[in-house]
Amino acid sequence: MSRNPQLGRNGELVHLLTLEGLPAEVIAHILDTAEPFVSIAEREVKKVPLLRGKAVFNLFFESSTRTRTTFEIAAKRLSADVINLNIGASSTSKGETLLDTVDNLCAMNADMFVVRHSQSGAPHLIASHLTTMGRSYVHVVNAGDGRHAHPTQGLLDLYTIRHYKKDFRALTVAIVGDVLHSRVARSLIHGLTTMQTAQVRVIAPRTLVPARIEALGVKVYNDMREGLRDCDVVVMLRLQSERMKGALLPSPGEYFKHYGLTDEKLALARPDAIVMHPGPMNRGVEIETAVADGARSVILPQVTFGIAVRMAVLSIVAAN
Amino acid sequence: MSRNPQLGRNGELVHLLTLEGLPAEVIAHILDTAEPFVSIAEREVKKVPLLRGKAVFNLFFESSTRTRTTFEIAAKRLSADVINLNIGASSTSKGETLLDTVDNLCAMNADMFVVRHSQSGAPHLIASHLTTMGRSYVHVVNAGDGRHAHPTQGLLDLYTIRHYKKDFRALTVAIVGDVLHSRVARSLIHGLTTMQTAQVRVIAPRTLVPARIEALGVKVYNDMREGLRDCDVVVMLRLQSERMKGALLPSPGEYFKHYGLTDEKLALARPDAIVMHPGPMNRGVEIETAVADGARSVILPQVTFGIAVRMAVLSIVAAN
Amino acid sequence: MSRNPQLGRNGELVHLLTLEGLPAEVIAHILDTAEPFVSIAEREVKKVPLLRGKAVFNLFFESSTRTRTTFEIAAKRLSADVINLNIGASSTSKGETLLDTVDNLCAMNADMFVVRHSQSGAPHLIASHLTTMGRSYVHVVNAGDGRHAHPTQGLLDLYTIRHYKKDFRALTVAIVGDVLHSRVARSLIHGLTTMQTAQVRVIAPRTLVPARIEALGVKVYNDMREGLRDCDVVVMLRLQSERMKGALLPSPGEYFKHYGLTDEKLALARPDAIVMHPGPMNRGVEIETAVADGARSVILPQVTFGIAVRMAVLSIVAAN
Repeated sequence: MSRNPQLGRNGELVHLLTLEGLPAEVIAHILDTAEPFVSIAEREVKKVPLLRGKAVFNLFFESSTRTRTTFEIAAKRLSADVINLNIGASSTSKGETLLDTVDNLCAMNADMFVVRHSQSGAPHLIASHLTTMGRSYVHVVNAGDGRHAHPTQGLLDLYTIRHYKKDFRALTVAIVGDVLHSRVARSLIHGLTTMQTAQVRVIAPRTLVPARIEALGVKVYNDMREGLRDCDVVVMLRLQSERMKGALLPSPGEYFKHYGLTDEKLALARPDAIVMHPGPMNRGVEIETAVADGARSVILPQVTFGIAVRMAVLSIVAAN
Repeated sequence: MSRNPQLGRNGELVHLLTLEGLPAEVIAHILDTAEPFVSIAEREVKKVPLLRGKAVFNLFFESSTRTRTTFEIAAKRLSADVINLNIGASSTSKGETLLDTVDNLCAMNADMFVVRHSQSGAPHLIASHLTTMGRSYVHVVNAGDGRHAHPTQGLLDLYTIRHYKKDFRALTVAIVGDVLHSRVARSLIHGLTTMQTAQVRVIAPRTLVPARIEALGVKVYNDMREGLRDCDVVVMLRLQSERMKGALLPSPGEYFKHYGLTDEKLALARPDAIVMHPGPMNRGVEIETAVADGARSVILPQVTFGIAVRMAVLSIVAAN
Repeated sequence: MSRNPQLGRNGELVHLLTLEGLPAEVIAHILDTAEPFVSIAEREVKKVPLLRGKAVFNLFFESSTRTRTTFEIAAKRLSADVINLNIGASSTSKGETLLDTVDNLCAMNADMFVVRHSQSGAPHLIASHLTTMGRSYVHVVNAGDGRHAHPTQGLLDLYTIRHYKKDFRALTVAIVGDVLHSRVARSLIHGLTTMQTAQVRVIAPRTLVPARIEALGVKVYNDMREGLRDCDVVVMLRLQSERMKGALLPSPGEYFKHYGLTDEKLALARPDAIVMHPGPMNRGVEIETAVADGARSVILPQVTFGIAVRMAVLSIVAAN
């Protein structure tokens, strides 16, 4: 299929599968839509009736309390009915295929699927299947698939950067850490280049840099001090504990020495640089506590914006 | 107790425990009540306020994401508050008895229990206990007990048959597979005979036919081709994977050869025959994919009707 | 911090962490507030909009279906959005600290945390942290921490006693069983002494009596018959099954003989004495069935009052 499967005939967003290839105006529209939702969250009654009576299914084939919770909150603030399905323990263990599960939930009149899956491409597969079955009025939102994409995380990162720094075209953004295994990094890189960010840098040890990543429009640094110089935004990635034990890295302590963010290293970035992290943090591994809790950290605002961005995505696709 | 424990003084449905002995007019009333709920599910706002402020407890002593989800959706569309209790992991493991758990939940002002239990008779036991305790205003819906009954599945099967075939009295219905271990089969047989279905057939290997099943008013066939001849409705049963390994059967491949539904075997039924399955399907074991996804399959509409039938049951017992 | 951390500047309740040091008028206000909520639970529509649009997080670091369910029902009857987080299986297993988890949930605009934790003091730690972070508008309710406190259980016990016996100052109350390991006992003792109960007795084998418990204002009895004499209220404690196997006790049968409540022992109390138990009961270990289900048992009303008391606590702290 040559057409972008997440866009409808008139270029409107019907699924959110990846930020790769998503037009800048669609991204900007999502960020604009999220803005009023930030203030709703500060009101006494944090609810709007945009999705009232709609059934949103959280289909988590890979467990993630944090991401599942943010989608659950976003959907409930939109007044949807939310059904959490932890599929690891369910029908697929009875030998039912992924698409049989989806067909069954569609037959229950699902309106939307929020899908987390350990296999890259699972949300795409579901979206194509829905089209094939003539059920294109059911929407799919990718909540993280394998190493491929985590588009709502990418969007909340973009929202945060735009909130603090306004114009992407003037910015240097560094993404630091295990880019190789990170769907967060991949989605953010696509988003940043689409929004015409002046320079996107990747800082990582050689073993954690994907082959041919420069083709995505990023500059690679193996030396963190060099890479941080004059950055406006520093995005730290979580180091999965399984990597710490693997052959790709020496030890958490060694990693921290070379790629952990400290106040001293951060001094190389611009004085008004912001520090981001998708969470959960490994304090003392990829980031020191003084930085994580410091004045330039916008890690908690990221979480707040994340709810608003997810409300925006759910309400936009539901309307299309 | 000689009186049917699921009916009140005036014959109204207060619990749904089994289809055995349930009068035809009660069944017909449930099916009639379900009809408008099918269209509610297709509306933008899929909610009616019939159970607003009521507390429905999903008491699943045996895990079943699929059935639990259908009841959760049904109750939420009726605007009830739904509390899911996975009791395997809960108080009973602390040594609390089933009836102590029920008493405690009643004391929390439960309005309704949807009960799934691996032991036949558990929902009956709860219903009798509620009567003994003077809490007959609390309702019990059996969501599957042991090998005994799965009445809402039986009702959604009846709804599906009536939807496509109108008059039970003119129909030949074949139920194919592991009838011995199937509460689905048992409930459907009772429902079909009560609704005066012209002929109900059971097709299974000798080892999977319960003793004295003819007493229920069915005709037994060990040869699938013979049994399918001129059927209007073919209901395939799921072959539990534990049976495949057991002494009762040779192998999944051998089972498929003799009792798997193929287009070729289905050709023996009437040209307008419909194919049903309670799900989840074992494709290639009891049914081939061409049939499961074919033009005569009504397997997904069964799921849709299942929500409406459960909404009907919940709203009827709540009103009585 | 010298000030009571659960009270605001004007002495109003902002968190509920423990009954220790909580002024009698605050306790009385909670009990008074709970009264109308008891009747709400008996209405057709069991909901009031006091917490509409508020996000209540059930943070259960230690699993407890029963307590979690009572808080979930209480919050839903107040129309809150409830998010259940079973944290054992979640972020903390990813190495995130307790306070990072709390910060993240605050960033999602949580309004209230209901916290169950195996470590004594965890809810206090969260409450102090919220104050430090300038988030004192987020409220913490302790749902049981280690052996320290279970204040909502203590309050529902007080509610039950006041309901049946009116004036604490005229009463003799006996708490029987494993006081050493019981946060329920500790909270109830603080509540009873604050409400100026005439006499609070603790009845237990020597091995299950905490050192220096007399300092709390209770009288210790090792002989149950002696301790029960002329009591108005008998509160039985659950004997954890791990204790039954431990070195502290001989056997369940021996325990029952000496400290199990029977009709015969209960005859030593006042004729109108009431019998309480926090549940779940071990029938035949700490209490015999005839007493548990007998005319003087108020064990099920305790559960009913527990919902109302939790509704009172949630609505009071939310308003402050």
